Amino acid sequence: MPRTSTTSSPQPSGRNPSASEALGPDGRIEPGKLHEIPARQGRALRVATGQIMQIVNTHGSQVGDFWCFADGDMTEFLSMEHLRTGLRRLSPGQGDGLISNRRRPIMTLLEDSSPGVHDTLVAACDSRRYTQLGHEGYHDNCADNLLMALSAIGLRAPEIPAPLNLWMNIPVEEGGAMSWQAPVSRPGDFVRLKAEIDAIAVISCCPMDLLPINGEDARPKSLGIMLET
Amino acid sequence: MPRTSTTSSPQPSGRNPSASEALGPDGRIEPGKLHEIPARQGRALRVATGQIMQIVNTHGSQVGDFWCFADGDMTEFLSMEHLRTGLRRLSPGQGDGLISNRRRPIMTLLEDSSPGVHDTLVAACDSRRYTQLGHEGYHDNCADNLLMALSAIGLRAPEIPAPLNLWMNIPVEEGGAMSWQAPVSRPGDFVRLKAEIDAIAVISCCPMDLLPINGEDARPKSLGIMLET
Repeated sequence: MPRTSTTSSPQPSGRNPSASEALGPDGRIEPGKLHEIPARQGRALRVATGQIMQIVNTHGSQVGDFWCFADGDMTEFLSMEHLRTGLRRLSPGQGDGLISNRRRPIMTLLEDSSPGVHDTLVAACDSRRYTQLGHEGYHDNCADNLLMALSAIGLRAPEIPAPLNLWMNIPVEEGGAMSWQAPVSRPGDFVRLKAEIDAIAVISCCPMDLLPINGEDARPKSLGIMLET
Repeated sequence: MPRTSTTSSPQPSGRNPSASEALGPDGRIEPGKLHEIPARQGRALRVATGQIMQIVNTHGSQVGDFWCFADGDMTEFLSMEHLRTGLRRLSPGQGDGLISNRRRPIMTLLEDSSPGVHDTLVAACDSRRYTQLGHEGYHDNCADNLLMALSAIGLRAPEIPAPLNLWMNIPVEEGGAMSWQAPVSRPGDFVRLKAEIDAIAVISCCPMDLLPINGEDARPKSLGIMLET
């Protein structure tokens, strides 16, 4: 007999304040105000077509896992494999559209004050990642932060897409070897992203403290987020 | 009011014989026999723990989009972003585990007779890809072949994972620029894959005929598939 699997949304494997502390009611945040995303946590917000959001690397050394979904249809989202295919490049730069799994831009990367080193290759960290790195017990992680930040505004992700890892520095050598390095961004560096459709953006301050991707001190920090007026 | 999206399995946007012509009942195929996957189509098969499957590049120039799911739980599958993270390399070589989204090997790449050029970066082609490349009307595509090949054995994919694009030659230059080149494999080249868990394997003979990824003549061809005895 053929067996048919049923589909169910992924669930977080643990919990932190990301699950309850939304930036604003229903993910609508006050424009012109810089909001903080606390270290090790994630937040979701609604960005209407044409609105511009800034993500600020307040401390300079912090990686932000970034996802973007179509508001009203969570099955359309920013997709790293479609982004690379559309750009014909590993990683986006100023002026590039951030391409969804339906092969259209969800947002445009208007401006990037940093040296432009971001990652599209590495999966969001999750509980299993920390276990494999030797951690015992629950560890905050970007996959759970995504799920919790969405649930805090009443949404569910149908899957965990590969994130755009802002400021994550994963050099690729000739031959394809990858390494996990500290960011080259500076305090106050920012990206400006314009929504091309009504979108749900999610940012997780990566809680990795077992590898130097959040700086040589391996101390996860906060990020800033602002909707321009 | 928060809106909650419901989750639904992706559906093919068109149809070819992949939807009805399974390689064997319930995806169980006769070991020791070389089966053909016709050009432009996809097929699914069950591979039990410890079994070894061969995928043969009969004509040498054909790309095979490859997926692998856990038999009994389609929400676990070979994941390119988890594979790269686990390997610390863009692409797998002989002896490497093919890592799932639960960060464990679903299969091991036992042997690769080809020069080892495979791609993990590019999304499966789909209807929108061909429309963007100028094609009018329905075009066979790997995403639909995946969905149809699974449906032919009574299964559904909860999402369309990024495929392991066997023999697809996408050089990455310093700086990250990618290009779409003809395969460097030769007629009869094969990979041998050992199942580490009970698995559902799916292979699509990529029907791309608008770019030279299936050879300079851009003529999609068949692939061979065999379960070793």
